Amino acid sequence: MNDPVVQRLADELEIRNIVAELTHLADTASDAELDRYFELLTDDATWAVLTDSEVLGTQERTGHAAIREGVIQRRSEGLQGPGTNTRHLVSTMSVHFESADRALARCYWHYYTNTTSPAPTLALMGEYRNTFVRTPAGWKMTRREVIPG
Amino acid sequence: MNDPVVQRLADELEIRNIVAELTHLADTASDAELDRYFELLTDDATWAVLTDSEVLGTQERTGHAAIREGVIQRRSEGLQGPGTNTRHLVSTMSVHFESADRALARCYWHYYTNTTSPAPTLALMGEYRNTFVRTPAGWKMTRREVIPG
Amino acid sequence: MNDPVVQRLADELEIRNIVAELTHLADTASDAELDRYFELLTDDATWAVLTDSEVLGTQERTGHAAIREGVIQRRSEGLQGPGTNTRHLVSTMSVHFESADRALARCYWHYYTNTTSPAPTLALMGEYRNTFVRTPAGWKMTRREVIPG
Repeated sequence: MNDPVVQRLADELEIRNIVAELTHLADTASDAELDRYFELLTDDATWAVLTDSEVLGTQERTGHAAIREGVIQRRSEGLQGPGTNTRHLVSTMSVHFESADRALARCYWHYYTNTTSPAPTLALMGEYRNTFVRTPAGWKMTRREVIPG
Repeated sequence: MNDPVVQRLADELEIRNIVAELTHLADTASDAELDRYFELLTDDATWAVLTDSEVLGTQERTGHAAIREGVIQRRSEGLQGPGTNTRHLVSTMSVHFESADRALARCYWHYYTNTTSPAPTLALMGEYRNTFVRTPAGWKMTRREVIPG
Repeated sequence: MNDPVVQRLADELEIRNIVAELTHLADTASDAELDRYFELLTDDATWAVLTDSEVLGTQERTGHAAIREGVIQRRSEGLQGPGTNTRHLVSTMSVHFESADRALARCYWHYYTNTTSPAPTLALMGEYRNTFVRTPAGWKMTRREVIPG
């Protein structure tokens, strides 16, 4: 594939798929299956919550171990993952290429609890600013800023 | 179009459009206009609800006649379709190609009632696992698994 | 880029990005940054609300000045924009090309208030029917029909 226009289109769809897949994994993957989640993040990836909210405090986690610790902690608190009756909706995504190898995927997220009840609850929402970089193993997310509100 | 990369990109966007169009048709098409809905399904398509919920019971329907019967029944019960003040939101979609001619489009759905009121109600939500196949008349959905929760 | 298939794919992703970017700008751009919003609309664009709702009355605004007046008015009333704790979700989008240079992007929108609270409110929802045209400066939206409900 030498056509840069085609390459850009393929890059954008790959990024859009990764954002969705990360959400599916966060919501439905077993702890063991979470390895796939981390294959989609660079080794030095940062996950940063920029402001406090009632569910989620301001924090910045860098590297797979620190990010995984956060995921496992939220799972153990019943906030997310299989069996917690929660789900994240991701929508309203734009993908902006800062260069051929770096892109910002900006989108909105909505976090639902009581998903199996006849009245699911919207418990938190906000914005993700996801920075992606091209790697030899495909596009990976290198920074996610979580902006509640 | 001989470039397989371009073909794949075109396939993915076609599938993403079909998932949205099926939703628009389910929500807003008249009974007569529903023929378009079935043009987007293979003749042997299956629509399966995998688990019970208060709005929707476990069921599996195969073929246009059986699936249409379900749509018409839900419309007659005021659960969906024009005039029922309901709408489905579809989001968080990944498209994964199992082969050049078969793809899984995994996404989340949210079902709203009282859509014309100042406080629309989220009445049910969950996941769709949609299998698409390439046919001489374009991509068509051959199986939808509906997973409430 | 001479391949019409590739051109069509690039056009569709450009349109999908513009719909998201318009939403991001409406929600988060400062009044000064709104100029970018209008770069994405044709000079003669029309923004039309087709039916009354409690939040938004039937109206039709044509041209940047009239549309901007509506945006500024809704901002001054605390209905949208930075600091109002509101956000629009856009989802379920299909893009249908009426010709090589004109497309209809049909999607659903959900309007949330109290976004920073632990119980954000879904205050209005409905459909957008967005008509886009190709211009020498890229695709621009020339008509948005807002259909509450």
